[in-house]
Amino acid sequence: MKKKQKKTGKRRDKAEVPKAVSSRLSFYLRELEILKMLGTETISSQHLAALLDISSSQVRKDLGHFGQFGFPGLGYGVERLITSIKKIIGRDKVWQVCLVGCGNVGSALIHYKGFAASGFHIAAVFDNSHKKTGKKAGRLSILPMSEFEPVVKKKRITIGVISVPASAAQDVADGMAMAGIKGILNFARVTLKVPAGVKVVGVDLAVQMEQLIFHLSN
Amino acid sequence: MKKKQKKTGKRRDKAEVPKAVSSRLSFYLRELEILKMLGTETISSQHLAALLDISSSQVRKDLGHFGQFGFPGLGYGVERLITSIKKIIGRDKVWQVCLVGCGNVGSALIHYKGFAASGFHIAAVFDNSHKKTGKKAGRLSILPMSEFEPVVKKKRITIGVISVPASAAQDVADGMAMAGIKGILNFARVTLKVPAGVKVVGVDLAVQMEQLIFHLSN
Repeated sequence: MKKKQKKTGKRRDKAEVPKAVSSRLSFYLRELEILKMLGTETISSQHLAALLDISSSQVRKDLGHFGQFGFPGLGYGVERLITSIKKIIGRDKVWQVCLVGCGNVGSALIHYKGFAASGFHIAAVFDNSHKKTGKKAGRLSILPMSEFEPVVKKKRITIGVISVPASAAQDVADGMAMAGIKGILNFARVTLKVPAGVKVVGVDLAVQMEQLIFHLSN
Repeated sequence: MKKKQKKTGKRRDKAEVPKAVSSRLSFYLRELEILKMLGTETISSQHLAALLDISSSQVRKDLGHFGQFGFPGLGYGVERLITSIKKIIGRDKVWQVCLVGCGNVGSALIHYKGFAASGFHIAAVFDNSHKKTGKKAGRLSILPMSEFEPVVKKKRITIGVISVPASAAQDVADGMAMAGIKGILNFARVTLKVPAGVKVVGVDLAVQMEQLIFHLSN
């Protein structure tokens, strides 16, 4: 049995990696972190595949994009694979996040434990309503939009979450881009225009729901 | 100029339609509904493409999956295309939805206006905590889990939203499948096992965040 393994696999240019692969990496990581908590030290591609309800050849192919992680015959070292995937995704550091819009969705996001657990630190929250600014949202005070750019720069915030109504979202996105934010998680039901170099991921729950019914309605 | 148009295009088997296409249909619909509100009657594939920041050939190809909708030289009739896409997606009727787990995420979802606007009617909400049952969540009273199956059947609920902690999510999913629910929108950070015939769409905000940083961290 060959136990030789390359220390860190050859890393492909990220631009080449299909979106489906980068998304599955997150799901591998989520399952691996649970396995680690349960004390599991190694896992086969078959087992990892079963946890995600995909094929084991898919697992091997996905991870193969980034080099050789497994020990043939032994499977993957859980802790080592966690470290490698975190590095590939960019989860090997803490990201500073701001949130604009402290309505129902915003408030739920502020209290959402999954962000902190995944290395996303909400460092500032903003709202343009006088009724909200100064009040507490979790451990943070809600700041007025007039403080947006200086606070973002001072706290080295690189990710912005938009949870304002659709009609206000483009203005907020423009302000985020101006302040140097490079990634936007957008909960408003509108397609945002952003300058090159800024990446937007939209979360539209109605669209997710439509994905469901598209399959059910036949 | 040919103005002839087939009444309803040949509809492909949904199983053949790639996930990316079905997801874009939702985004087309979202933009078309805004255009309709603004009084726009026709739209070219170029314009629709620009709104979604994709290519016009992609728009024509996507819609081509489902038949011929456009008038050559005139573009697409906005209202007609809305009707057609709604029918393809399954948005031509109201879907009855239940929600289990009235914590922060659940509460935000109950108040989320996008669901109702998209034809999803939250007909019942449940929680297993005695502190919550009987209290109001929006216009609904929170019901105990003991009433789950009879209420789901009585109200003909076909879609379930899971917003309970990860450790409780599989039990809830099992109960949903038992009660005859066919589609699950899962906010818990766990991969659910469900019987054949039940479709799960997972919404993991940390995974969405990782999609962002994957692109930023290079």
